[in-house]
Amino acid sequence: MLNFESDYVNGAHEEILKKFIETNDETSSTYGADKWSTLAKEKILKVIGKRFAKVDFLVGGTQTNETVISTVLKDYEGVIAADTGHINVHEAGAIEWTGSKVLTIKNSNGKINPDDLRQYLEKFYSDPNFEYMVFPGMVYISYPTEYGTLYTKKELKEIYSICNKYKMTFFIDGARLGYGLMSKEADIDIKNLARLCDVFYIGGTKVGALCGEAVVWTKNNQPKNFITSMKKRGTVLAKSRTIGIQFDTLFTNNLYFEISKHAIDMAEKMKKIFEEKGYKFYIDSPTNQQFFIMDTKKANELKKKVKFSVFENYDKDHVIARFVTSWATKEEDVDKLAKIL
Amino acid sequence: MLNFESDYVNGAHEEILKKFIETNDETSSTYGADKWSTLAKEKILKVIGKRFAKVDFLVGGTQTNETVISTVLKDYEGVIAADTGHINVHEAGAIEWTGSKVLTIKNSNGKINPDDLRQYLEKFYSDPNFEYMVFPGMVYISYPTEYGTLYTKKELKEIYSICNKYKMTFFIDGARLGYGLMSKEADIDIKNLARLCDVFYIGGTKVGALCGEAVVWTKNNQPKNFITSMKKRGTVLAKSRTIGIQFDTLFTNNLYFEISKHAIDMAEKMKKIFEEKGYKFYIDSPTNQQFFIMDTKKANELKKKVKFSVFENYDKDHVIARFVTSWATKEEDVDKLAKIL
Amino acid sequence: MLNFESDYVNGAHEEILKKFIETNDETSSTYGADKWSTLAKEKILKVIGKRFAKVDFLVGGTQTNETVISTVLKDYEGVIAADTGHINVHEAGAIEWTGSKVLTIKNSNGKINPDDLRQYLEKFYSDPNFEYMVFPGMVYISYPTEYGTLYTKKELKEIYSICNKYKMTFFIDGARLGYGLMSKEADIDIKNLARLCDVFYIGGTKVGALCGEAVVWTKNNQPKNFITSMKKRGTVLAKSRTIGIQFDTLFTNNLYFEISKHAIDMAEKMKKIFEEKGYKFYIDSPTNQQFFIMDTKKANELKKKVKFSVFENYDKDHVIARFVTSWATKEEDVDKLAKIL
Amino acid sequence: MLNFESDYVNGAHEEILKKFIETNDETSSTYGADKWSTLAKEKILKVIGKRFAKVDFLVGGTQTNETVISTVLKDYEGVIAADTGHINVHEAGAIEWTGSKVLTIKNSNGKINPDDLRQYLEKFYSDPNFEYMVFPGMVYISYPTEYGTLYTKKELKEIYSICNKYKMTFFIDGARLGYGLMSKEADIDIKNLARLCDVFYIGGTKVGALCGEAVVWTKNNQPKNFITSMKKRGTVLAKSRTIGIQFDTLFTNNLYFEISKHAIDMAEKMKKIFEEKGYKFYIDSPTNQQFFIMDTKKANELKKKVKFSVFENYDKDHVIARFVTSWATKEEDVDKLAKIL
Repeated sequence: MLNFESDYVNGAHEEILKKFIETNDETSSTYGADKWSTLAKEKILKVIGKRFAKVDFLVGGTQTNETVISTVLKDYEGVIAADTGHINVHEAGAIEWTGSKVLTIKNSNGKINPDDLRQYLEKFYSDPNFEYMVFPGMVYISYPTEYGTLYTKKELKEIYSICNKYKMTFFIDGARLGYGLMSKEADIDIKNLARLCDVFYIGGTKVGALCGEAVVWTKNNQPKNFITSMKKRGTVLAKSRTIGIQFDTLFTNNLYFEISKHAIDMAEKMKKIFEEKGYKFYIDSPTNQQFFIMDTKKANELKKKVKFSVFENYDKDHVIARFVTSWATKEEDVDKLAKIL
Repeated sequence: MLNFESDYVNGAHEEILKKFIETNDETSSTYGADKWSTLAKEKILKVIGKRFAKVDFLVGGTQTNETVISTVLKDYEGVIAADTGHINVHEAGAIEWTGSKVLTIKNSNGKINPDDLRQYLEKFYSDPNFEYMVFPGMVYISYPTEYGTLYTKKELKEIYSICNKYKMTFFIDGARLGYGLMSKEADIDIKNLARLCDVFYIGGTKVGALCGEAVVWTKNNQPKNFITSMKKRGTVLAKSRTIGIQFDTLFTNNLYFEISKHAIDMAEKMKKIFEEKGYKFYIDSPTNQQFFIMDTKKANELKKKVKFSVFENYDKDHVIARFVTSWATKEEDVDKLAKIL
Repeated sequence: MLNFESDYVNGAHEEILKKFIETNDETSSTYGADKWSTLAKEKILKVIGKRFAKVDFLVGGTQTNETVISTVLKDYEGVIAADTGHINVHEAGAIEWTGSKVLTIKNSNGKINPDDLRQYLEKFYSDPNFEYMVFPGMVYISYPTEYGTLYTKKELKEIYSICNKYKMTFFIDGARLGYGLMSKEADIDIKNLARLCDVFYIGGTKVGALCGEAVVWTKNNQPKNFITSMKKRGTVLAKSRTIGIQFDTLFTNNLYFEISKHAIDMAEKMKKIFEEKGYKFYIDSPTNQQFFIMDTKKANELKKKVKFSVFENYDKDHVIARFVTSWATKEEDVDKLAKIL
Repeated sequence: MLNFESDYVNGAHEEILKKFIETNDETSSTYGADKWSTLAKEKILKVIGKRFAKVDFLVGGTQTNETVISTVLKDYEGVIAADTGHINVHEAGAIEWTGSKVLTIKNSNGKINPDDLRQYLEKFYSDPNFEYMVFPGMVYISYPTEYGTLYTKKELKEIYSICNKYKMTFFIDGARLGYGLMSKEADIDIKNLARLCDVFYIGGTKVGALCGEAVVWTKNNQPKNFITSMKKRGTVLAKSRTIGIQFDTLFTNNLYFEISKHAIDMAEKMKKIFEEKGYKFYIDSPTNQQFFIMDTKKANELKKKVKFSVFENYDKDHVIARFVTSWATKEEDVDKLAKIL
């Protein structure tokens, strides 16, 4: 059956599997000290143009968010996120589990509006009781957002400048980073992104890998003894080559960005098809996640022929349907989808 | 200087001090096993009309909230509160520190509207991804609320019935319980309150004591080995008589309610004065906290003569001023306030 | 270079890689609902002979320990372990990070002696202050232990019977389970093991997989909404097929046990070689980890030709050297080792 | 009945009660900003001879330990304590609840031997796997210890010098500080003590107060925004005068030390009586807690006439009985005890 349910319904990019086979008999160091992890880190540093940044490999998105956030925040601080932010909604309370509060700002198309952020901070610091409140210590955004939308370079600059003013860390969740950067509407590249934040991660799970996320500390700001903090949270892979090999492959010959580009091309094509069929967009997403308003009955029928997810109910008779492309989406499947719709 | 800043600016009720002196030479058991704690618990059970309820004494409000909430919630649950709830705003992230998320519902005059609660729960359980979200395991309200407002009996019944339907614990923060129950608008007494929730606490700090809050588990639902959980959170007083003696005194001869009534009488008198002087209420509070909209300049001048707190800014030129009466407020001070205004 | 450093220095068993390739184009459900995870679970249940047990897949050992332990323990409880237990020494405080204390018993050859356990519990419950102490709520052992040693069936029975008497959960860390069960000295099989504890895990990372551990709840005792608790701890793989495929392969045609057996055969061969060369054993291990007392100088020279780990210093002039075989150890490498020694 | 059960079986010193009455009608600031807290802090700073130290008031010992330790330790660190240390045994896992491990060293008469500490640290940092272990970040001792014993000035100097070498914080639990410093065997005063550690607390609960402990940060090392961290842990008293007034009184006219001295005099007298009656000491304590080996039958009989605690069983026929004097012990009661024995 056609499957547009998410960008993690396939296995791994074939180059990764090849590399697994090719290297399988080699023995290696462990706990992050394997040679492929080292190579992968070097390649990533080169791509982002920051020789002194630090890279760490973790296994999945939620654990990456909780490890980064809980090692950076001070005792009296919490993390600001859009109310629709992944850490606020779909991580089962992972950040709170680590002892910290998620401070929310109402989203604008899935994003934090810099003005809203400024206002939040001004209000906080003018509150006579702010000492009994959670200090804002970090700003968390996702690029692209949970709604597929993108921050402009101008917005990122503004947010980062606010973060610097208030001594907050700026953290970008890049679970789908490739799909953001390869969008036609993206006005930054990964070098710029690395310059405009303190820490971000490059999602592997959703962009061709079996698992794995690469955290990048861009400002010589990796927390001290971070490997110990990772171990304590159960996020170090003993057989770290498992992720090292995958990122080494993804960052060889521009693979990560090429396969991300493919997903965007497929999304653009799919978007056009829906438009031609008269569907209304719930939100105008320039990336690989597309959201359509769909008659509930129609959606139920369609589900017999193609997998997609119902994001939420729109009104009594309509749902918001999410269709997602990925590095693995075949053009012929998009063509088939066109026929079905 | 006149002081209407809060209901904890005075020492203790004189009966409490008398009792301290009277009992001072007696030796006693410790860690909750002293005779005054036992007596106080019996008196509280009698007043609430629940022979099999359990009472525990803790020292302050924030620690009571975090101890009750974190021992009741299951691993996958969080606590629902109004966005203005004390646990969400002014406890520096205490609940999150214990590992649990505060799930917020937009307040209506400081309260949770039962319909909003129902809607929240229906939405949660119809969400296709609810397994990756924090389950609602408890509803927290304060009586009276942080804005001095009161739930009606009907509202409490509705909320409790929703809690029962969804297997959530209903917890009432009674830091100012006496001031709520003695309000002219209160349509319940403490017996009813105890029937309409699973656990609540009777605030001592703000109602005549030097410190101390009495948690009441109304449904034979005190968590197993609760004394150990209290100890682990640092909330057991070694010299537990310190709180036992105070609650024994407060619940002798109806003292708790009588002194609460006095605060309400003073609040009513103060309210009338402000009304006559033409002040606008920010919110219509029937309890001992009163909120007025005040010209910022006027407020600054007034501060030279009387202590009160600026709750927050209302607009560019006005603040919300909070004036609070208590068990210790002298009628002559309210008269003096009238002259100053 | 020869490598006997650990049992996770190689890639994956070739059958696993084959299966990855074979299934790569198939789309699948996610978050544990993929078909390979389902198949793997069924196969594991069949092997352990427990139709109603529950299986969950996690990524690594430390995260498995902290997830199992922290979801099982009650608020007032801690977990008993040997002082040499992995959770007490080499997990960077992971259990404490989740809020629980590791209660230690002095090890006997890496094991908990049932008599010592009994004594610990009797002492605890006869302590007049036990309410202010951490209650023992679980017993954690590893099979085989961190020193390669094995519990006998009699010992497991005794420990389990003590656990039942004191209402404690019995949890077995099986990071190297295959190497334990395939040892010539093992007097139990996996069916027995499953009967003699409440929860255990089958280690994948060290026995042929790239990553992955299978937790088995043997007594219909999987914690409620465990998937949510896993998510909250960041231990659910979005692309869960990554582990499902691996365990499906390992539990097809007895592969898991066959490759474990191979490691044991290689360990026996290696053991004999060291014996013949006159090395003294630090501990008599019947599994794939072998510990030898070695002249420090000799050890340093040897390190130029073969990788192994120095477990700790034995005395001023000697170290304890650890040599480990695995599913991937080649017989010719053991022969080469013999020549080098 | 005679009561030598502990040093917190009485109320408060009469001067404290007098002060409560005297100040009762005055209104005051709250949350630590009241004038008595300010006065008390100044007096304490004067006594310890450190103008730039910072003092914070908390309510009880366990919460003080967990607040100090958890705000000082870094993410990858734990706290070293004697295995008999209060935080390791009788605080129900409070430190672990905050996420940190207690690292234990076998006690010598209730104390940490500096040589053992040195050895622990050397072993830790020479362990090839120390990155996967909990880093020692703090040393916790109690003065006097749980067994009534005292560190010498030389021992404190040595421990502090080791702490400085390894960049660890040195924290002294002074729940019974007065009884230690007033012992005839004490070779330091409070000025010295403050110089020889980074943070300590002055116990109020056991030395004349109803509740309250004063934490002293001696090296300009109070954690940033500590009031917020206290609030988050529920350890700030809204009506902070409750503790301020008590410490203001205790540090006026040397009261704290005088009443501590009285307890020591009574302990010395009691000690002599037991000696004359032929009792054997379990441990030679120079402070207010005395431990005797007692025939179990004799102990049971004695319990009908005098309250004391059974510390633990000594052997089949004997118990270790603990008799404690305090600021409130009457000389006539010691005389009565002599007759009963």
